[in-house]
Amino acid sequence: MTEMQKLGARAKQASYELAAANAGLKNAALCAIGLQLTQRADEIIAANSRDIAAARENGMSEAMIDRLTLTRARMEGIVSAVNSVALLEDPIGEVLGGITRPNGLRIVKTRVPMGVIGIIFEARPNVTVDAAALCLKSGNACILRGGKEAIHSNTALASIMRDAIAQAGLPADCILLVEDTSRESANEMMRLSGYLDVLIPRGGAGLIKAVVENSTVPVIETGTGNCHVYVDYNADPTMAADIIVNAKAQRPSVCNAAETLLVHKDIAPEFLPLAAKALAEKNVKLLGCERTRSILTGVAAATEEDYATEFLDYVLAIRVVEDVDEAIAHIARYSTRHSECIVTQDYKNSQKFMQRVDAAAVYINASTRFTDGGEFGLGAEIGISTQKLHARGPMGLREMTTYKYLIYGEGQIR
Amino acid sequence: MTEMQKLGARAKQASYELAAANAGLKNAALCAIGLQLTQRADEIIAANSRDIAAARENGMSEAMIDRLTLTRARMEGIVSAVNSVALLEDPIGEVLGGITRPNGLRIVKTRVPMGVIGIIFEARPNVTVDAAALCLKSGNACILRGGKEAIHSNTALASIMRDAIAQAGLPADCILLVEDTSRESANEMMRLSGYLDVLIPRGGAGLIKAVVENSTVPVIETGTGNCHVYVDYNADPTMAADIIVNAKAQRPSVCNAAETLLVHKDIAPEFLPLAAKALAEKNVKLLGCERTRSILTGVAAATEEDYATEFLDYVLAIRVVEDVDEAIAHIARYSTRHSECIVTQDYKNSQKFMQRVDAAAVYINASTRFTDGGEFGLGAEIGISTQKLHARGPMGLREMTTYKYLIYGEGQIR
Repeated sequence: MTEMQKLGARAKQASYELAAANAGLKNAALCAIGLQLTQRADEIIAANSRDIAAARENGMSEAMIDRLTLTRARMEGIVSAVNSVALLEDPIGEVLGGITRPNGLRIVKTRVPMGVIGIIFEARPNVTVDAAALCLKSGNACILRGGKEAIHSNTALASIMRDAIAQAGLPADCILLVEDTSRESANEMMRLSGYLDVLIPRGGAGLIKAVVENSTVPVIETGTGNCHVYVDYNADPTMAADIIVNAKAQRPSVCNAAETLLVHKDIAPEFLPLAAKALAEKNVKLLGCERTRSILTGVAAATEEDYATEFLDYVLAIRVVEDVDEAIAHIARYSTRHSECIVTQDYKNSQKFMQRVDAAAVYINASTRFTDGGEFGLGAEIGISTQKLHARGPMGLREMTTYKYLIYGEGQIR
Repeated sequence: MTEMQKLGARAKQASYELAAANAGLKNAALCAIGLQLTQRADEIIAANSRDIAAARENGMSEAMIDRLTLTRARMEGIVSAVNSVALLEDPIGEVLGGITRPNGLRIVKTRVPMGVIGIIFEARPNVTVDAAALCLKSGNACILRGGKEAIHSNTALASIMRDAIAQAGLPADCILLVEDTSRESANEMMRLSGYLDVLIPRGGAGLIKAVVENSTVPVIETGTGNCHVYVDYNADPTMAADIIVNAKAQRPSVCNAAETLLVHKDIAPEFLPLAAKALAEKNVKLLGCERTRSILTGVAAATEEDYATEFLDYVLAIRVVEDVDEAIAHIARYSTRHSECIVTQDYKNSQKFMQRVDAAAVYINASTRFTDGGEFGLGAEIGISTQKLHARGPMGLREMTTYKYLIYGEGQIR
């Protein structure tokens, strides 16, 4: 048995205890985590400062160092998130349906935990606590593998959380951290079939691609968003401008931000100058097709590659289209099936867009930025799925569960 | 673009039309398939006889040739199954939930097709029609890759089905057959991300393992069943014997057949001779632990490997255990998490077994043979999932779908 398999076996064993734990026990463990993280914040911040010192030595960018940094205020935010998770409804044990068959068999479909969830993430130590809390609440043991840049912070956080849940009466092994942050450990995790029931990568496109391509464990693909806003011929121009500015520039670094603006040819001469002005105020750089550039001056040419790119930046590609069908075809070609929006006052086009566009979230007259667990009322999210298997869009506690059929008989045979 | 990618692009294009088709149109297409298969049965049987001739030449076993053979009676069975699928309720468009958010956004979670489903299967031509019909009804285009042994049969079947649905008004490319039956074509299909939304292997353990290990497309793992029956200390011995005989011997070649019998030590001296006698009448060969062999004479020793084996044959491994906890631990170690059964009259043990055993279907006092789409009332099944992601246990039409969020706004931004 490799070290990773040993971790897997420990997590699996703990997962059986956790799956049988009631909501009261799980909530007590979450509260204990919040309390211990508060009481031992100094210890965590000291560990974090070792990560920061190493990061500076290795020339990490200030933006990345900021993401890595834990302060007392940020620790309070993390604890507050754990407490919010404790307040969410327990998804486990919900009866999803059932039937009594003609032969008298009573079949009850019941929500149960996945078992062991693996999470591979990068250098954000808040993910360590957030992911552990969501796994715990949904009855799943977790194996966490964060980036090497945060290893001291993560080791402190995991150790404190393990102490807390053990004190509350759950096996410490419900939360396990992979201390080996080499590339090999990530690859080993992707092959941990039999121990891991699902693997969720949280991070950039490169990480997600590597996991999808190499994992033999079932994966939930999260987070890549090449999202579009299509402005139809009779859209309210002010509403459309507000939506594209919000979708692009309110927080460009996130997956539900828009990357391409599609504009119906009839509204383009009126709308594009209005939109360009509002976007310029947010310092958004524009790239456009020929028709766009004949209306707007000083716009660079957009390439095929631009339309396929998730900029995650103050950059927006623009294309003028013939009609809603060309918009739908463009989206079918370039979309990552995350969030797509039509701005229109035309009923038929709104319905066509909703039906024909294949994405987790399809909006009429609203910003794509709403694709988020909190905004959808799920309470918290472990990520936003861009695949169709199992879960689509924001994944809350329910999306971290599966079901089993419980069948009550009196000796039935076939 | 490779030939396989071209197939993928055609299927994707057709899938948009099919996703927007209403139940009436899909049912008309299914009825057209049934009619054409009936009218052109001679053509199919002629193609099938070429496959059979080649199989005989290659020395295929009679059992395999029987699976490959299409007769007029079997064609009637296939057509009857297609007609049954037409009668099932259309799963598409079902509203699964929704919410109006405080900001007025109306979010409606709606059931939609997956898009394109890939199915890799072996030498059973009935699967070609069965899988195509279930995909069509659930609004999914399909790419079918059967075994080379059935290529003439499959080509005829697919061509007739494509004609039929085109006549009914759906794109012929809703049903596509991979005519290249080389190993490379299967490998290419496993890498067809961007075109295939899900891949379902239907066949033996070797095929399923290859797909799980090599696919970058999300996979639903089906069919491996190392199932157990545990006879508790106070079980009704006659009921327990009936259940193990049924679970083992009614149809040993299927995934929901039992492979290991676990017996509580207190009931073993009374129960094992009774069970052995009933199993002997079905010509079941027994392999046992030391305690089993001290009770039953002429039983060979069971090895660790035997307990891990899905025999799919008239062979049963037996182990005497201390109590329900040891039974649960044995199952946790060897089970493929398909179907597990306890025979007991003890309430506490029945509840513990249901809660602690991690499997798609957990039975009290009934044969594991009931894990089946028809027996569960799902109407039809595309397979039995042994993974936890997306679908677990028998997969009917609903399990071949996903959902999307439709969001109605009036200009909301964040």
